Amino acid sequence: MLTLKLKTREDRRLRAGHLWVYSNEIDTATTAAKGVAPGTLCKFVDSRDKPLGVGYVNPTALLCGRLLTGKADAVIDADWMLRRLQSALALREKLYPTPYYRLAFGDSDGLPGLVVDRYGDVLVVQLTTAGMENLKAIVIEALQRLLKPRGILLRNDTSARELEGLSLYEEIIGEVPETVDLLESGVPFKAPVRGGQKTGWFYDQHANRDRLAPYVKGARVLDVFSYVGGWAVRAAKFGASEVTCVDSSKLALEVAAENAKLNGIALETRQGDALDVLKTLRGEGRQFDVVVVDPPALIKRKRDTDAGTEHYAALNRQAMHLLAPDGILISCSCSFHMEAAELQRILLRESRTVGRRLQILEQGGQSPDHPVHPAIVETRYLKAFYCRLA
Amino acid sequence: MLTLKLKTREDRRLRAGHLWVYSNEIDTATTAAKGVAPGTLCKFVDSRDKPLGVGYVNPTALLCGRLLTGKADAVIDADWMLRRLQSALALREKLYPTPYYRLAFGDSDGLPGLVVDRYGDVLVVQLTTAGMENLKAIVIEALQRLLKPRGILLRNDTSARELEGLSLYEEIIGEVPETVDLLESGVPFKAPVRGGQKTGWFYDQHANRDRLAPYVKGARVLDVFSYVGGWAVRAAKFGASEVTCVDSSKLALEVAAENAKLNGIALETRQGDALDVLKTLRGEGRQFDVVVVDPPALIKRKRDTDAGTEHYAALNRQAMHLLAPDGILISCSCSFHMEAAELQRILLRESRTVGRRLQILEQGGQSPDHPVHPAIVETRYLKAFYCRLA
Repeated sequence: MLTLKLKTREDRRLRAGHLWVYSNEIDTATTAAKGVAPGTLCKFVDSRDKPLGVGYVNPTALLCGRLLTGKADAVIDADWMLRRLQSALALREKLYPTPYYRLAFGDSDGLPGLVVDRYGDVLVVQLTTAGMENLKAIVIEALQRLLKPRGILLRNDTSARELEGLSLYEEIIGEVPETVDLLESGVPFKAPVRGGQKTGWFYDQHANRDRLAPYVKGARVLDVFSYVGGWAVRAAKFGASEVTCVDSSKLALEVAAENAKLNGIALETRQGDALDVLKTLRGEGRQFDVVVVDPPALIKRKRDTDAGTEHYAALNRQAMHLLAPDGILISCSCSFHMEAAELQRILLRESRTVGRRLQILEQGGQSPDHPVHPAIVETRYLKAFYCRLA
Repeated sequence: MLTLKLKTREDRRLRAGHLWVYSNEIDTATTAAKGVAPGTLCKFVDSRDKPLGVGYVNPTALLCGRLLTGKADAVIDADWMLRRLQSALALREKLYPTPYYRLAFGDSDGLPGLVVDRYGDVLVVQLTTAGMENLKAIVIEALQRLLKPRGILLRNDTSARELEGLSLYEEIIGEVPETVDLLESGVPFKAPVRGGQKTGWFYDQHANRDRLAPYVKGARVLDVFSYVGGWAVRAAKFGASEVTCVDSSKLALEVAAENAKLNGIALETRQGDALDVLKTLRGEGRQFDVVVVDPPALIKRKRDTDAGTEHYAALNRQAMHLLAPDGILISCSCSFHMEAAELQRILLRESRTVGRRLQILEQGGQSPDHPVHPAIVETRYLKAFYCRLA
């Protein structure tokens, strides 16, 4: 197996528990990754040749290596993959009574480059690195041994793959319908795994949606960037008096309406740009007791920070305009580059702009099936602030 | 009414939503707080005499002033106090089905210097500033008009009062028993409001204890710094197979045993210094599936940071030694000076020391009856990390 040596002191991050190696940390004088096929398995050693573990390398990427295990003699095969997935599954089975969750969350589950969402007997997989793409066969084998799924959908169309020089593609193994069924805390939903966003459903907001209960009883609820109605339907089931979904996607709102029907609740939908619709609702004199603002990542790369920050501010300001006295704003960001403290500053500033007193009641993160790796800050990305505006 | 003028640009913090004024921000050339009785009501104006609102001042304190309202013509009387308390109560009544919560949380409820915990018809009050101490009569009147309590206990024995030059005292209005009854998510407890810690019960951990459910079913649970058994009893009610409480206080463990009896569960108690008991349990070969480490503030002042940090590290390291494979560590800190990111670094470092892989599953803060004021960082103080150690 290829051995890659790190420069003096460049082993510190790995020894502290991190899993990533950058190209400028490799001692290219003695060992070179150049010319190696993207995703090749390798051993990492420190500058004194002490082993750091086994991982993979992609010489075409700046973030060129990831450690799979600290065991220098580990064999990365289907048995190894199965053990990692078994550990991930054991956690989810403890957390959830029904088989609907993110089964594997990349680095945080010791599986850099692998995401698996489980919808009962259908699995949706994303391979985001060349190293994990190379391990595709053992990933599939291990998943089949672990869960015997009816179907596996590889949604390898995420832009993260482009940084690794990988092509985008979709592939189906077995049988995967357009839309799958799932339960979130007992509430049934349909998710468009093939035509929808990402892997079809946002399991990361499950825990945050669970917290809706005390806020929405008898309330008028507005769900901005509703996608297929996760927040809206949960709110209605918790006793909201009326729910309105806003989204730019016709497909999303159609599925939202189906999800409402499935749960025997009424739903108003408004298709369009979120800011436009919020302004229209204000023009109509509408008021809401609870507004959820849960946009897609508005700051995808660091250079989008200024524009994205202004976008978050404008959305939350418009949401505040629609809030009844003592109303609840649930403001989310899934942008890693938008830190919680910065989102809080935006919310405070906008509350001053609209002349309301703001209290932060709760602050949620991603659900526990998206664990945080304590050494890798990028694994913590979701923020949800529950605010009251007097 | 006394008017205090701030120096040029020193109004910015208040205009951004903050409530505090430091003594060096007052324009002492034109207006002097010196010689004024501690806690006197006053108007604050900016350097151009534009009004900032009404608050109170204590010239003997570094943090000498707090804004009660941005309304320049506000009259601070029992009606004003009642309106603020009504707003605070409305939030708690939305959040909780039973009357057991922190009713008022100082700055965050627009009531700087006032804390009120509600145990049904008994209220425990803390007045932490000279300004609020001066308003004591209207606080009591407003609380009596709002809730007609059977008894009010003033636990004015908190060290925060010393910074304000206030004496420490306890006072009872009406009827207050030694121990009161409360419900936490339906589970009955007794809390020693007179002899116990702080106001007798830690409502701030309510939401975090609610999250125990998935982790403790069938588990052996260790509750370190158990106080009167909040975590332990909740764990047992969620189906823990055995629970053990560690605390240095005999009274706390006696009430913990009563709380166990009240709930028909068995409880092991170990009295002693937490680190000593953890080492003893390790010596006995004991293992636990879930360990809760919930110490009192180990970093009370900034200068305690180094010693306190080492203390947190040692406690969590010993807790990790007692954890079974794939065990859950719930690690808390209520020290404002211990930031969440720093506690996470400690947990990561100690997990490396003991050779375990750590995942952070959830991160909780204080319960929503302890809202965060978005401009006042000190109002966010509680951290609870739910970790799995492979």
